[in-house]
Amino acid sequence: MNSFIFQNPTKIYFGENAIRYLGDALKPYGKNILLTYGMGSIKKSGIYDATMDILKKSGKCVYELSGIMPNPRKEKVYEGIHLCRKHKIDIILAVGGGSVIDCSKFIAAGTKTDRDFWHAFLVNQEECYDALPLASILTLAGTGSEMNCGGVISDFENKLKLAYSNPLLYPKFSILDPTYTYTLSHDQTTYGTIDAISHILEVYFSKPDDSNLSDDLAEAILKNIISSYFQLLSSSHDYTAKANLMWCTSLALNGLLSLGKEGDWMSHQIEHALSAFYDIPHGAGLAIVHPNYLEFVYKSAIPKFARFARVVMGVKYKGKTDAEVALDGIYALKDFFRAIGAPTKLQDVNISESAIEMLANTVIVYPTSYAKKFSKDDVKTILHACLEHKSRKYEGGLVP
Amino acid sequence: MNSFIFQNPTKIYFGENAIRYLGDALKPYGKNILLTYGMGSIKKSGIYDATMDILKKSGKCVYELSGIMPNPRKEKVYEGIHLCRKHKIDIILAVGGGSVIDCSKFIAAGTKTDRDFWHAFLVNQEECYDALPLASILTLAGTGSEMNCGGVISDFENKLKLAYSNPLLYPKFSILDPTYTYTLSHDQTTYGTIDAISHILEVYFSKPDDSNLSDDLAEAILKNIISSYFQLLSSSHDYTAKANLMWCTSLALNGLLSLGKEGDWMSHQIEHALSAFYDIPHGAGLAIVHPNYLEFVYKSAIPKFARFARVVMGVKYKGKTDAEVALDGIYALKDFFRAIGAPTKLQDVNISESAIEMLANTVIVYPTSYAKKFSKDDVKTILHACLEHKSRKYEGGLVP
Repeated sequence: MNSFIFQNPTKIYFGENAIRYLGDALKPYGKNILLTYGMGSIKKSGIYDATMDILKKSGKCVYELSGIMPNPRKEKVYEGIHLCRKHKIDIILAVGGGSVIDCSKFIAAGTKTDRDFWHAFLVNQEECYDALPLASILTLAGTGSEMNCGGVISDFENKLKLAYSNPLLYPKFSILDPTYTYTLSHDQTTYGTIDAISHILEVYFSKPDDSNLSDDLAEAILKNIISSYFQLLSSSHDYTAKANLMWCTSLALNGLLSLGKEGDWMSHQIEHALSAFYDIPHGAGLAIVHPNYLEFVYKSAIPKFARFARVVMGVKYKGKTDAEVALDGIYALKDFFRAIGAPTKLQDVNISESAIEMLANTVIVYPTSYAKKFSKDDVKTILHACLEHKSRKYEGGLVP
Repeated sequence: MNSFIFQNPTKIYFGENAIRYLGDALKPYGKNILLTYGMGSIKKSGIYDATMDILKKSGKCVYELSGIMPNPRKEKVYEGIHLCRKHKIDIILAVGGGSVIDCSKFIAAGTKTDRDFWHAFLVNQEECYDALPLASILTLAGTGSEMNCGGVISDFENKLKLAYSNPLLYPKFSILDPTYTYTLSHDQTTYGTIDAISHILEVYFSKPDDSNLSDDLAEAILKNIISSYFQLLSSSHDYTAKANLMWCTSLALNGLLSLGKEGDWMSHQIEHALSAFYDIPHGAGLAIVHPNYLEFVYKSAIPKFARFARVVMGVKYKGKTDAEVALDGIYALKDFFRAIGAPTKLQDVNISESAIEMLANTVIVYPTSYAKKFSKDDVKTILHACLEHKSRKYEGGLVP
């Protein structure tokens, strides 16, 4: 187990009607609130009205930034920074999923610096010294942004999607009401689920691979995510399944599972190129890239991949070598993603072979746990593997 | 899953030589430090010198409160409060295990109130409005006090051992160096391990028992605790096992596993009577009481107890009813505690049958998840069961 430093100060209000705590939770902050949200679904669902009602009763002065898109763009951050300065905003309240919360984090940081937020934080990864307080009301489970201090912003003009994290960007509090996710589309639930699974695997499949509590917790959360997701296929309003899925996706990236581990994150780096160029859902890109990345590196950690196949993917392993079981597990993951309706090859999201060179050139590469000399050529090899959904025979797995 | 509110602000510095962060971690606080510790083991181990060296280099003015005993007594808290007021202490640094940290928490709270800390907090459970900042350097894994906001204090004169918690009592930071636990005795490691297992079971065996991520995480941590403990039997300086055990015991009671669950804590209530009267190690009392408490209530939650037997205790279950498997699991737990050298009946700690009436009368009883009419008579029934280590035949279990 590697050494680590850990602190996660975000306060979580979890459960049906948890929004009733909003007024009290906002008391320590000033009067001027910037309410940020997406493309209007919170108006249809009634969450907007419920929020505004509480804010008005609490005597807050509410300004709004709407229209934050999936894969949030830097232009939207500048718009938010302008509003915060103009109206002397005291706290930002993000109502939505990871895109809205991520965008709000950079508005919070960008407002409190003279530097250009994009170049300072995303491009140059400079230190952040101050940020507006931020809180969230979560409506889509997946990214974990509601309980971590990171975020991702896109510059579509220059085809860049970059990540940044800083302890000042933890939400002060987040309200997680599982019933708010009842109205999500099948695709939204699926992509959120895949995003969370990918977050866990990025860390689980990294060194050290000796006995490690974080890996045990990762397996427990993966199994719960998968069983909760299956439960929702037959009963989309199952409160317990929605609640478990929501809490799983928060824990998947709130820092807990990374403790003592290196982390890898190369699948995310490669996917960021896909969504920067083609504006595809992050979860869709991960469903294509992540299993193929794992297939590229698995020979460096066969016992760990075999453990994953047995414990999480339910692959039958009697009479097989660890190497065979390890590969079976990766194919069981591919088959699971395809079975739940996610794309599993580039063509499924209208990306052709001719784009691979260009995509690979924008990926930030570095030595990873299982590939010490990982290069842009390796990215190309992986993206070529993403052109085909190959099959492999195995027994067991998650798909009946 | 029940609704919950969760926030744990304690910063953890984890790993070998994590004490190197002490100087930086103390920077936000004032100059006057009260260093609290136990019976002198930190002087033998060198941890005292290492700590004082950093404090002096950091220009701190150090006052000391030593001699904090296992099952810390209220008199020691008064002594600490007196020192804090006299020397205008800015922060308390507790170096030790749960007893030292618990005692320091009530010094922190007691210093900042005009009320008598014992009556206000422990007896009357009144609100705490202010407390001195507190930090810890952990030398004994078990209670989880280094990462939670609760503590237990004893009044031996009146045979009372009472608990209290308040968010102001979270340590600001805790330093967890697994190598600091290399020099613990077998009994210290064993009792710390049993305490942590008991903390987990108090919550795991409570409602709701529908699918719940917290239960999955509980099983993962229980399995890791048990395998790490066994690893240490053959190799007492195994860093990975010590690190896992230390982190497991912190997570066992840092709030995470309670989320969405009622919690029970009746085994702890009963044990507190034992250690209040006989000053026995808390872990020893729990090894006697907890399995017998579980045997008293298990018929109210047979599927859950059968799951525990299968998943955690490794009981063979083919061809058996859930009720049989459930009981097998409890006996496997009893046998595990006995096999690792813990007492499993009252006589093992020199408590006789004649004491049961008196002990039961001091236990605070309330309706629990699985025993809605739990009474003092039930406590007596359980303590009578604690007079004998009964056997039961089953296959599997943890003891080879």
